[in-house]
Amino acid sequence: MIKFSKVLQNIKTYEAGKPIELVVREFGISPEDVVKLASNENPIGTSPSVKKALITNADKAHLYPDDSMFELKDALALKYDVKENNIIIGAGSDQVLEFISRAVLDENSAVLMSAVTFAMYEIYAKQMGAKIVRTMSYEHKYAEFIEAYEMHKPKIVYICTPNNPTGDATSKVEVIKIIKAIGSEAIVVVDGAYMEYASAKDKAYSISPNDILEFPNVIYLGTFSKAYGLGGMRVGYGIAQKELIEQLYKMRPPFNISTLSLAAAIEASKDETFIKKSILLHQSEIGRYETFAKENGFAYIDSYTNFITYMFPEDMDSTYIADTLLKKGVIIRNLASYGLNAIRITIGTEKQNDTFFRHFAEVIA
Amino acid sequence: MIKFSKVLQNIKTYEAGKPIELVVREFGISPEDVVKLASNENPIGTSPSVKKALITNADKAHLYPDDSMFELKDALALKYDVKENNIIIGAGSDQVLEFISRAVLDENSAVLMSAVTFAMYEIYAKQMGAKIVRTMSYEHKYAEFIEAYEMHKPKIVYICTPNNPTGDATSKVEVIKIIKAIGSEAIVVVDGAYMEYASAKDKAYSISPNDILEFPNVIYLGTFSKAYGLGGMRVGYGIAQKELIEQLYKMRPPFNISTLSLAAAIEASKDETFIKKSILLHQSEIGRYETFAKENGFAYIDSYTNFITYMFPEDMDSTYIADTLLKKGVIIRNLASYGLNAIRITIGTEKQNDTFFRHFAEVIA
Repeated sequence: MIKFSKVLQNIKTYEAGKPIELVVREFGISPEDVVKLASNENPIGTSPSVKKALITNADKAHLYPDDSMFELKDALALKYDVKENNIIIGAGSDQVLEFISRAVLDENSAVLMSAVTFAMYEIYAKQMGAKIVRTMSYEHKYAEFIEAYEMHKPKIVYICTPNNPTGDATSKVEVIKIIKAIGSEAIVVVDGAYMEYASAKDKAYSISPNDILEFPNVIYLGTFSKAYGLGGMRVGYGIAQKELIEQLYKMRPPFNISTLSLAAAIEASKDETFIKKSILLHQSEIGRYETFAKENGFAYIDSYTNFITYMFPEDMDSTYIADTLLKKGVIIRNLASYGLNAIRITIGTEKQNDTFFRHFAEVIA
Repeated sequence: MIKFSKVLQNIKTYEAGKPIELVVREFGISPEDVVKLASNENPIGTSPSVKKALITNADKAHLYPDDSMFELKDALALKYDVKENNIIIGAGSDQVLEFISRAVLDENSAVLMSAVTFAMYEIYAKQMGAKIVRTMSYEHKYAEFIEAYEMHKPKIVYICTPNNPTGDATSKVEVIKIIKAIGSEAIVVVDGAYMEYASAKDKAYSISPNDILEFPNVIYLGTFSKAYGLGGMRVGYGIAQKELIEQLYKMRPPFNISTLSLAAAIEASKDETFIKKSILLHQSEIGRYETFAKENGFAYIDSYTNFITYMFPEDMDSTYIADTLLKKGVIIRNLASYGLNAIRITIGTEKQNDTFFRHFAEVIA
């Protein structure tokens, strides 16, 4: 018998948003009638310039990518006014989370995060056998974080802002206050996967890697999966002082980004028009979701992201609602497994949102 | 100060083949004059049907892939006559090596491999703090493996056949003999990354996943990077009994293959014409490399792969040869870091091989 690591007994796996194909197969709904608002994918689609880059590079699939990722790092360095050696690229910012977890965690260590936050923090920590500590609130509250920090001395502290799957954000002032109160022996991860949306909504919530680069134990994470519209290409990044980046690099496998993903990210990083267009659509549509909640008598969390979280009263059940919507071909995320009677909906195109509202009204009628 | 895991002190990083862009930048050679025969990329390029699939899917970059990888597993199950639940997909077979290493290794365990073999076995083992045990020979010799196995009781035994970077192979009979002599508490990895070339050369060296699926502790690894021409897309797979696959799945991050890589691999798995064409080119060109070695008075290892290894006598220095070739725009792999006075050359197109022979003749003139 093979003796597997004991951490495997305790592993949680990530629950992905259900793919459109599955709904087609299971419920016999035709693909064009399925609306997927479950994975925070960019509703505008793929940027035309990225599409062009992918087509141009389609005959380079046999060639390994430039493992130094010189051009992509150069573009990010320019964008954020940092140096190339402050940057590490991951297969999604997820993979940077994995590098961080593996670089510092073991069975005797703990990680600290808010009550409801990105699922991969817990998954990677459990892969290392580490203990999960959560604050009481899903918001990142200074007093709760510092109390838990003092009590558990975690090796990683996660600040997900804007937060996923809740959509709330923590102001820059508050984030820096938390960072300063936490000892330099813990890595503080400021996960800005949805930062482009927060920055567009309110400057006080806009955090740039440069705002926190002075702290040797802090790393900023960003991704091309959301505002940049590259969810399927798996490219994210971490930005920190070079000494921290050097350590994380030791956990990076070679060629962790495919040749086409690299080409797509390089192109996307230059395409500010697409970002602006994504943000504009989002801003013009999210108000409809807020109004809909108010009109139907349930709460929502004020969103700094490309999704909104509906919080239901006791007489509405998120699992029933999510399951019923699914049978109608509307895929959204049930947050019951996060301990919330809530659902998370990606803000879609005008037409997708129409479909959502129509079906949702039927479900709760 | 952050306290990093002590395994980080001992990490080796993978030395990638030098990219063409680097030679262009450093030596001022124009890109069309650079010949890269360093990374065992398919010299035919990308299959036309894969190219078409990539173009068709270029506007799906914003959509996460089907994380169940249903269609790709289905294609592989059909190809190898196994079940979908016997298969795990990795970002290159490298990533499956990572899952295996993380599932069983710790600081008290050892891994066993031949004297000269794929570098990632050691790298992933060191990331887990495990001890590396190597046999005396680069060939996978039964007596050496069993002796080392009995002495060190490794948790993973690597059989790389055909072997990389040497190019030799181990016969099916011999591989099964080794497997049978090793206790079922060790995972035996049969890494067939270059198997398509060995199978075409000599049936006795052809190993199919089904030949070893009866052993609960054995996993077969395959890749789309070589004969299938998808080096840049990072897709590989492991095939084993479902209980072993289930354990490895616990270490798989979600969406570990990009949407376009998945589309490319699905298409490539059906494209037998491309494989045949790759093998034919290879078979028509490799003889020239053998003849060249004989004519110039040095040895080579009989190759079962898409590359050949030249073994030099004392008066020829592999580092000098590799460096001098590089300045002429010919990128090959120096094996000095593997303890061999040798170079590894990917068999290229007729024209690439002409260029190699011309420049090499000058270097040793």
